[in-house]
Amino acid sequence: MTREVAGFDTISLEIDADGIAVLTLRRPDRLNAFTAEMLEELIAAFDLTDADDAVRAVIVTGSGRAFCAGADLSAGDTTFDYAANGDTPARGRYENGIHRDGGGLVTLRIFESLKPVIAAINGPAVGVGASMTLPMDARLATPDTKVGFVFARRGLVPDAAASWFLPRLVGLPTALEWSYSGRIFTTEEAMDRGLVSALHAPDDLLPAARTLALSMVSDSAPVSIALTRQLIWRMAGAAHPMDAHRADSRALEIQGASDDVREGVMSFLEKRKPVFPRKVSSDMPHIWEGQEAPEFS
Amino acid sequence: MTREVAGFDTISLEIDADGIAVLTLRRPDRLNAFTAEMLEELIAAFDLTDADDAVRAVIVTGSGRAFCAGADLSAGDTTFDYAANGDTPARGRYENGIHRDGGGLVTLRIFESLKPVIAAINGPAVGVGASMTLPMDARLATPDTKVGFVFARRGLVPDAAASWFLPRLVGLPTALEWSYSGRIFTTEEAMDRGLVSALHAPDDLLPAARTLALSMVSDSAPVSIALTRQLIWRMAGAAHPMDAHRADSRALEIQGASDDVREGVMSFLEKRKPVFPRKVSSDMPHIWEGQEAPEFS
Amino acid sequence: MTREVAGFDTISLEIDADGIAVLTLRRPDRLNAFTAEMLEELIAAFDLTDADDAVRAVIVTGSGRAFCAGADLSAGDTTFDYAANGDTPARGRYENGIHRDGGGLVTLRIFESLKPVIAAINGPAVGVGASMTLPMDARLATPDTKVGFVFARRGLVPDAAASWFLPRLVGLPTALEWSYSGRIFTTEEAMDRGLVSALHAPDDLLPAARTLALSMVSDSAPVSIALTRQLIWRMAGAAHPMDAHRADSRALEIQGASDDVREGVMSFLEKRKPVFPRKVSSDMPHIWEGQEAPEFS
Repeated sequence: MTREVAGFDTISLEIDADGIAVLTLRRPDRLNAFTAEMLEELIAAFDLTDADDAVRAVIVTGSGRAFCAGADLSAGDTTFDYAANGDTPARGRYENGIHRDGGGLVTLRIFESLKPVIAAINGPAVGVGASMTLPMDARLATPDTKVGFVFARRGLVPDAAASWFLPRLVGLPTALEWSYSGRIFTTEEAMDRGLVSALHAPDDLLPAARTLALSMVSDSAPVSIALTRQLIWRMAGAAHPMDAHRADSRALEIQGASDDVREGVMSFLEKRKPVFPRKVSSDMPHIWEGQEAPEFS
Repeated sequence: MTREVAGFDTISLEIDADGIAVLTLRRPDRLNAFTAEMLEELIAAFDLTDADDAVRAVIVTGSGRAFCAGADLSAGDTTFDYAANGDTPARGRYENGIHRDGGGLVTLRIFESLKPVIAAINGPAVGVGASMTLPMDARLATPDTKVGFVFARRGLVPDAAASWFLPRLVGLPTALEWSYSGRIFTTEEAMDRGLVSALHAPDDLLPAARTLALSMVSDSAPVSIALTRQLIWRMAGAAHPMDAHRADSRALEIQGASDDVREGVMSFLEKRKPVFPRKVSSDMPHIWEGQEAPEFS
Repeated sequence: MTREVAGFDTISLEIDADGIAVLTLRRPDRLNAFTAEMLEELIAAFDLTDADDAVRAVIVTGSGRAFCAGADLSAGDTTFDYAANGDTPARGRYENGIHRDGGGLVTLRIFESLKPVIAAINGPAVGVGASMTLPMDARLATPDTKVGFVFARRGLVPDAAASWFLPRLVGLPTALEWSYSGRIFTTEEAMDRGLVSALHAPDDLLPAARTLALSMVSDSAPVSIALTRQLIWRMAGAAHPMDAHRADSRALEIQGASDDVREGVMSFLEKRKPVFPRKVSSDMPHIWEGQEAPEFS
């Protein structure tokens, strides 16, 4: 009973009966290299999974041999010369004449996802192929698979806000050493440093990601998960626990009076599985008054 | 020579001859479930330990089988409906008509404690029973004991500013997975992920907490410890090391000219144990000018 | 082909043919204790390594038995009484009548270094001798060597913005316990907690630091490394990934159109070692408009 969402060229999006969406990068002949079109489709896909209450969690993986080999270099040495590429930069976007990194547009969108997101790294994840996984909630991978934040070897810098995400996931010394050297390392090293949480043989990777996704969402209220995702990711950078207290006081007041909590408490007292009525698409309380996410400028 | 501070109903507070205060949650017939009264008594207890120069460190533990089983659910499905509970919400407080989460009131108070605080988790710590330990400086626990951030299973979100504390203690992936799933896990897993620093058999737990507390404070100046506690907890969220430099320049200038430092340097040069004259109750320099803690709003 | 930079009294600075600078603390008869003169010379040395395009990375080590035993205590109990020391405080500086901690002046300067910095801890690193290593990108050490953040035992508080750096490197519980107790611990414990990344016998320490430094810089563009260093260290404290996205969008736009990237992409496609033309001294783009580093005040 898996249904596929139509309309994508560089990715595919399938949603199964359990509410697990699988977003697959689909340029296997190019090792799923990242393009301007893929950037826009990734953003559109997360808009869809957020809007669709049937979706409980999202798995991101690659088709063929690779997860994502990085930016598509078919434009050669002008690949990253955004101005030279006019209105259609190879990757990225201009807003009011200001360039926005395409990797960052994707990771900021995933950062705002209302559903948990799991990377299933089935093959090499290099450059933006590595950095796009950083705002995901967990990273599973196949053994002996290559990962690299290779930017400095190309004359670039880490993209996709990796400088914010990476030290929070692997600590400063590892983030610095990987990013300075730009070296390729294995998923075993990635696991040792905390970037990847588990390794699975190729045939077991998607099933393991699915099991993890289901364990995250099966017994929890969808609105609670969406709010929790906002709270933890935003508060990971916040200056003071008062910032969290403001937002979670509001969330607890509103949720506390909701039929979700009545069901959550009663199902607990009655020792049965809860059936939560509230929907992410229509019932998300606004808890960030005075603490809105920053605009690009 | 242990004295008990009178006047509490839901907790007890004992201070021993070494200056170690033991704060015990005392609703053993309710697994020390959290109530509005316990919230106010916890805050009052930390006001007392801060004001009493005889107290060098605080241990928080539970009476009976549990540490704290979470919010008292005796109000059933209206437990978290704060408005419905009028002027006496089951937990939490209204200020100028705005709801403040009760768990957050406690953890923000512990965040500001001028003495080190150690959790001795003697039994299940669930919901606010888990999140109230996060602003403590260390967590010791008994083996095979249950912990859970169960909020999303009840239709709630992590309380007590846990979204700020938890990713800083266990990293983003673990904080997210525990909070999405709301699952119960053991103190062995908590130790593996860095939430708990050591496991001790029930009879050894309080002695171990006491030994750790004494090792923290025995050779250090009380004012230095209080300032260090403010500096490290606040700077864990600060944007830039300049924020620390401003505060520690001020602290070092004032402390540097104090009789505490004269004693600290001379006792070191004379290879003897220091006896520091300055008191937290009267001699705390104000080092946060221009960087005051945020107000609730 | 190693050349020594002249003009220093309390440190030495040598630059080898591979572009690795070795900065050695040179007061071996005083266990390299920190003085006001050493503070100014350390800052001057990092100004030099930043300005010299021949320098790719910096190693900091100590001469003789120690790395750095902390503040020079030859002024006895007035060592830290900055006002009493008039215009020449034993350590630190006054600006517009406001005291600035000397350790913080050094660590803020290292924080801004445009070249990777590695500590080679060859012997005891205590007090400011420990905290000065925190803004470095990696710490290697000899086995069974003493480290201590002893400030609270002297009546002081952690200096050098250690309250910002230390919890980000070793986590809150360890940072708190080390800083409260002020106890001396070994480099084995430092490695276990993540402060030190590897231990090497004394004769192998500098060679290992050199190997690590070369692995960081050999295949990467100097301007990319300098920008990456700014991005990761600053974003480790930033509130939101949007802060990174602003800066790296700018960096990627400018670098993307540069001859460094043309060389980086072409050398990759041609499977040869890159030769990057751009220089840190003259070609650093300004990527922090609207996000400038805070001034002292």
